[in-house]
Amino acid sequence: MITTSASQVNPAERILMGPGPSSVPHRVLRAMGAPTLGHLDPQYLAIMDETCEMLRQVFRTANKLTFPVSGTGMAGMECIATNLLERGDEAIVCVNGVFGSRMKDVMERCGATVHAVEAPWGDIISKEQIAAALDAHPKSKLLAIVHAETSTGALQPLEGLSALCREKGALLVVDAVTSLGGHELRVDDWGIDAIYSGTQKCLSCPPGLSPVSFGDRALAVMDARKTKVQSWYLDVSLLRKYYMNPGAGGGRVYHHTAPINMTYALRESLAILLEEGLDARIERHRIMHLRLRAGLEKLGLSYVPKHSLHTLNCIHAPAGKDEAALRKRLLEEYGIEIGAGLGPMAGKAIRIGLMGHSASQRNVDLVLAALAEILR
Amino acid sequence: MITTSASQVNPAERILMGPGPSSVPHRVLRAMGAPTLGHLDPQYLAIMDETCEMLRQVFRTANKLTFPVSGTGMAGMECIATNLLERGDEAIVCVNGVFGSRMKDVMERCGATVHAVEAPWGDIISKEQIAAALDAHPKSKLLAIVHAETSTGALQPLEGLSALCREKGALLVVDAVTSLGGHELRVDDWGIDAIYSGTQKCLSCPPGLSPVSFGDRALAVMDARKTKVQSWYLDVSLLRKYYMNPGAGGGRVYHHTAPINMTYALRESLAILLEEGLDARIERHRIMHLRLRAGLEKLGLSYVPKHSLHTLNCIHAPAGKDEAALRKRLLEEYGIEIGAGLGPMAGKAIRIGLMGHSASQRNVDLVLAALAEILR
Repeated sequence: MITTSASQVNPAERILMGPGPSSVPHRVLRAMGAPTLGHLDPQYLAIMDETCEMLRQVFRTANKLTFPVSGTGMAGMECIATNLLERGDEAIVCVNGVFGSRMKDVMERCGATVHAVEAPWGDIISKEQIAAALDAHPKSKLLAIVHAETSTGALQPLEGLSALCREKGALLVVDAVTSLGGHELRVDDWGIDAIYSGTQKCLSCPPGLSPVSFGDRALAVMDARKTKVQSWYLDVSLLRKYYMNPGAGGGRVYHHTAPINMTYALRESLAILLEEGLDARIERHRIMHLRLRAGLEKLGLSYVPKHSLHTLNCIHAPAGKDEAALRKRLLEEYGIEIGAGLGPMAGKAIRIGLMGHSASQRNVDLVLAALAEILR
Repeated sequence: MITTSASQVNPAERILMGPGPSSVPHRVLRAMGAPTLGHLDPQYLAIMDETCEMLRQVFRTANKLTFPVSGTGMAGMECIATNLLERGDEAIVCVNGVFGSRMKDVMERCGATVHAVEAPWGDIISKEQIAAALDAHPKSKLLAIVHAETSTGALQPLEGLSALCREKGALLVVDAVTSLGGHELRVDDWGIDAIYSGTQKCLSCPPGLSPVSFGDRALAVMDARKTKVQSWYLDVSLLRKYYMNPGAGGGRVYHHTAPINMTYALRESLAILLEEGLDARIERHRIMHLRLRAGLEKLGLSYVPKHSLHTLNCIHAPAGKDEAALRKRLLEEYGIEIGAGLGPMAGKAIRIGLMGHSASQRNVDLVLAALAEILR
């Protein structure tokens, strides 16, 4: 039986420099603890509308259908897959890491035939490969690609892909889990038709919501569906009746109970971002990455990907060292969390995140000092 | 552009007496605001294991596979449906309100043929109806039923149903969204094979997680699947590698980033529940319901269901009064939220929740005083 003395949750104050979650500012934690409102309370609806408007600014989009899915990042991935695809459809997925592979799996579970465009882990997918895949599979309804591959630390260029997709009538779907709010990302300028992200990366909000945005071409594809979306929880034809402001005279239609306090947290994290300014924030991520990179290379460490993310630094595990023991010492002696290698890179790489609130000079210099001490 | 002055989330302190969320104790809000840990941090895994153990106590089960799904209550419903059913399966769903209808929809989206057992809204489903349905559809893989129908306020007896189901080889699946922690509910004693609930009802935690529990018979059905679960996000064959403690020598396998701070909140809400005692808490809900009922009847108001829940009181809208205006006055003058009628009962009923922290003498007497004033 649990006793009163055991009832307190007293987690340590970690510095979160892994692949996410990133450290959450106190302002966000405090906002999250504001009194819970009902999900149909006019006050809550106003907070949610503001949150969606702020998300539009961060995605750089005018898409009306922009909202946080009530689940973590992977729920956003599944929301887009399950709404855009029907059984028997074809899709192209770019696979150069864990999250590309996962998108392929998720889309296959929607009953689609998925054609993979592959590159070695750590590499990026070339425009030529994408053009060739679109040529080879002209019936593909969409092409999906990961902007920031959290498993390898590779940054995938997206400019120009939309033109290739539109030429073939395919939608461009983007995973921006580790880039939104940390890397240049322009949904409308780059012609992205559907995109999802997470709150616990460069937005520095706790995990629990997945911001998504759908453009007009994606809406048209959903409107033309012949079958029901296989997930009721993620069915956008129902969700949009709640999230798209119906305007004067229209009513909100209850779908599910939204995670109220998580919305408070997301709204506050977006307010912090917009106060800093999106451009300034992206520049901060770049500068902190360069500072970390210089320090790591001085320590003799090298990067896995050629085109590294600023937000996630995937480096080869130090030769002759047990990377698990290294991470354990960082956690126990410094309270710093960094990430292990994922998938085929387990044991061979370590991942240092510089996301949102965690991407500070203080953290960069500390992790470098700590690594110098441990690798001495 | 959002300015600094607009960046504060300052919701009013409502008294939540609708169909959920219920009012969240300050202790839970405070726990939720504790520093965010990584989802693989040993400290977080300990908090999660404790949370699952406390959930077992509240479900009154020894089921090892008991954990909170990373979504709101309807994600729990979908988790159970999508893991237990495959395309071509048959299922029986009891429908006497919104949530039974929704289960039918969710299961049909899993590709199952669903046989409905129906009763008028507000009534309960009889054992005889269930026995007849099991006879008529002997291939049914499961029988699903709502314990506490939030849309009508009816309490469905569950004892004895398991024996009927086992005789026909069907699993017993239960929706306990509005009963867990507020009504007598015995997962093991009653032979329930799979069950889901929500956090924002009688547990008085913010919405965002859905506690579920699967028994051995359900595990066997999942192990015998021929096809992949159509939802990756909710795939229990993957989730169990993270949530089921693998014991010494075993490792946790990362699936998705769990909603860390929501887990803190759930753990604290369960600690509060266990400090009060589950029996004492259920009795408190009964007493508060009787107190409210006596007061409402004195005001000339009558209940919709014959077998009313203690946790949700669905009453006919006062004759000759605009129920929307009544609710608006309660909200604006008293800061009290109650619920509207749902589905065919829209405009015809109001719903007063007495769940968890909200089920107090102070709230009952206040809402009665407020209704007396407004109906004067």
